[in-house]
Amino acid sequence: MKDYKFSSTALRMKSSIIRELLKEAMNPGMISFGGGVPDPETFPREELAKVADKVIREEYSHSLQYCPTEGDSVLREAYLKYLERAEGITGLNLDNIIVTVGSQSALHLISEILLDEDSIYFVSKPIYLGAASAFALRSLNHEDLELQDDGIDLDRLEKRLAEIEKAGEMDKVKFIYVIPNFHNPAGVSLSLEKRKRLIEIAEKYDLLIIEDDPYGELRYEGEHIPSLFKLAGKERVLMFRTFSKVLSPGMRIGLVVGHENLVRKVTQAKQAADLCSPSLTQRIAGRYLEQYDLRESLKPTIALYKKKMKLMLDELEKDFSDIPGVKWTKPSGGLFIWLCLPEGFNTLEMMEYGKKNGVLFIPGVAFTIDNSCENCMRLSFCLPPEKEIIEGVARLKKTVLEYGKMKGLL
Amino acid sequence: MKDYKFSSTALRMKSSIIRELLKEAMNPGMISFGGGVPDPETFPREELAKVADKVIREEYSHSLQYCPTEGDSVLREAYLKYLERAEGITGLNLDNIIVTVGSQSALHLISEILLDEDSIYFVSKPIYLGAASAFALRSLNHEDLELQDDGIDLDRLEKRLAEIEKAGEMDKVKFIYVIPNFHNPAGVSLSLEKRKRLIEIAEKYDLLIIEDDPYGELRYEGEHIPSLFKLAGKERVLMFRTFSKVLSPGMRIGLVVGHENLVRKVTQAKQAADLCSPSLTQRIAGRYLEQYDLRESLKPTIALYKKKMKLMLDELEKDFSDIPGVKWTKPSGGLFIWLCLPEGFNTLEMMEYGKKNGVLFIPGVAFTIDNSCENCMRLSFCLPPEKEIIEGVARLKKTVLEYGKMKGLL
Repeated sequence: MKDYKFSSTALRMKSSIIRELLKEAMNPGMISFGGGVPDPETFPREELAKVADKVIREEYSHSLQYCPTEGDSVLREAYLKYLERAEGITGLNLDNIIVTVGSQSALHLISEILLDEDSIYFVSKPIYLGAASAFALRSLNHEDLELQDDGIDLDRLEKRLAEIEKAGEMDKVKFIYVIPNFHNPAGVSLSLEKRKRLIEIAEKYDLLIIEDDPYGELRYEGEHIPSLFKLAGKERVLMFRTFSKVLSPGMRIGLVVGHENLVRKVTQAKQAADLCSPSLTQRIAGRYLEQYDLRESLKPTIALYKKKMKLMLDELEKDFSDIPGVKWTKPSGGLFIWLCLPEGFNTLEMMEYGKKNGVLFIPGVAFTIDNSCENCMRLSFCLPPEKEIIEGVARLKKTVLEYGKMKGLL
Repeated sequence: MKDYKFSSTALRMKSSIIRELLKEAMNPGMISFGGGVPDPETFPREELAKVADKVIREEYSHSLQYCPTEGDSVLREAYLKYLERAEGITGLNLDNIIVTVGSQSALHLISEILLDEDSIYFVSKPIYLGAASAFALRSLNHEDLELQDDGIDLDRLEKRLAEIEKAGEMDKVKFIYVIPNFHNPAGVSLSLEKRKRLIEIAEKYDLLIIEDDPYGELRYEGEHIPSLFKLAGKERVLMFRTFSKVLSPGMRIGLVVGHENLVRKVTQAKQAADLCSPSLTQRIAGRYLEQYDLRESLKPTIALYKKKMKLMLDELEKDFSDIPGVKWTKPSGGLFIWLCLPEGFNTLEMMEYGKKNGVLFIPGVAFTIDNSCENCMRLSFCLPPEKEIIEGVARLKKTVLEYGKMKGLL
């Protein structure tokens, strides 16, 4: 067979730049600020092993069998109780929650049930790469909202919505996608004030907000800000949650919480997409949630990441504050710092210098649809040990100086 | 929010008829020949519990962490060795295999990477429902090949291909989808002779064959027939395998084996669809395959299902052979028998009579895209205990007689 006859969608697909870059992270001596993967030492392995053994031996007729497309009811019930305990979200039942294969599959299902080729959707710039790729499979009409220190640019949102309404195209606008807490890649959070204003705008134009919140439980300082879902309710907000950053990404458990009409349509799409998520990992997570206090067990993880984040911020302060025009975000949680160099720097090009110096980061272009943000980079502090954070930031400084001088930028 | 703005694809989605019907199976006293789910007593729970405990405690940095989109390499390597041992398939490496969330997600990914709205694809009639729903998300131009006792109607295939070629539309034909062994729902297998002829036709028109083989390892009598993949090779055939019927459906492990160019494109699509399959279930399955002989451990399962199948066939012979015009398939393996009543019977309508009499089956229309096969039904023998098979067939006979007399058909 000479050529396979791929679809037009398939011909648009490219391998992720992150994926390609991270292969380098395996090289000996390399310090990587690239991946957004949790530190495996934070996984409660003893507890999970115990729970797994029990659910396989004693609950095999559920844990090893097919389960409903909506997900294991033990897990869904336990998660609704968790939402009530942890965030005071009440009034939901099993019709308001569906389990997905990580948040990525939730993004994909949402893209399938909401987007047509001419659909318009609002996203942040920079954007979480997984969302960009899932949405782009269906529609390329993204409207970008610049990320500011307190979240997406709402002036721009209002301006564009007014224009779209004037053009009579409001029917095409499907949703506003936001990561409100400790944004990936930018690290910033949407302030309470802006959350309220965003909800007002969404109500005015009768728009759906998709609230993707993988990092909200990883707050290292400051006060918890109520979720958009808590503030506006299930009619207005569809909320994505995941166990990937708080229990284990390898279990691939995402949760979609929202209005029953939306959850029902996600269920129909999921039926054709994968029939059901793995019963085994769901039952393990469900029993774990029943038997352990997730927030309590997260405390050592939070302490560890907080220490690493502070260290990286301190090292950046020490090594980078003398570079004119450089700036970086100062998150209160999550896994990422977004560092922007002066105009003229191209972090994708700079990668080669970084590799030579033994340090990896993700160039900003990877998080934009229009290949902008080329002077920025994403740094993750969660995986490298403390001494590697110190050494890695020093190598990064060296890389910036080398590249900047070579290009006549410094 | 008054209405959510669903995509045109979403508006076409319906809940599966099987799903709705199977809710009835929970009613006390109901005997169900409906579901195609394995008997949980066949799951090797002791072995799986031991393996799970070990991979969580000792391999947590892989089993609980993200894994490559292509899948856990322990599992992929173990499966390639299994294919070589069990079926003499050689010459493959890790670039030829990707793990999916059950075969359903493989069907969905294939639909995404191969089908455009005007694409043509060949399927059997009746068709496996999951394939129909995944393909229909992208294109409705299915070409149906009637199932005969030895598999799909190849005369029809040749005739239609000649017509399509004459019309200059061969570029639109994307693949021929076949379940060669113990077809769901029809129970029949594609003969060796027809396999060879199918490959010749595919070669003549340079077409891809998708070989979906969930049941091949569940042969109860007769000789193993080589797979299309074994006969024609990776350039011509993309093969789907799964652990759902031979180990545990709840682990949701499907495998796609084929040419590296196709596997690479499936990988790109999977990245946007779910990032990666669960590492935990993959690592468990990989270590299980290394430590146990899957074919050996399947022997009791095969003995159990063989006994149940023979019992159901005997009971059908006893109770149904006096109904003029009735016929049913006599499979050599798998999970399903396809029973067709005389013209005029409508098994969807007959469901109500079945429920009243305490017996469930899946009406034939559920397995067609054009709502045909209305006089047929799918019967599964794998889950009910033997005495329920005897009683259930008797109830089915009673149902057929009642309905037939009421309609003046008998």
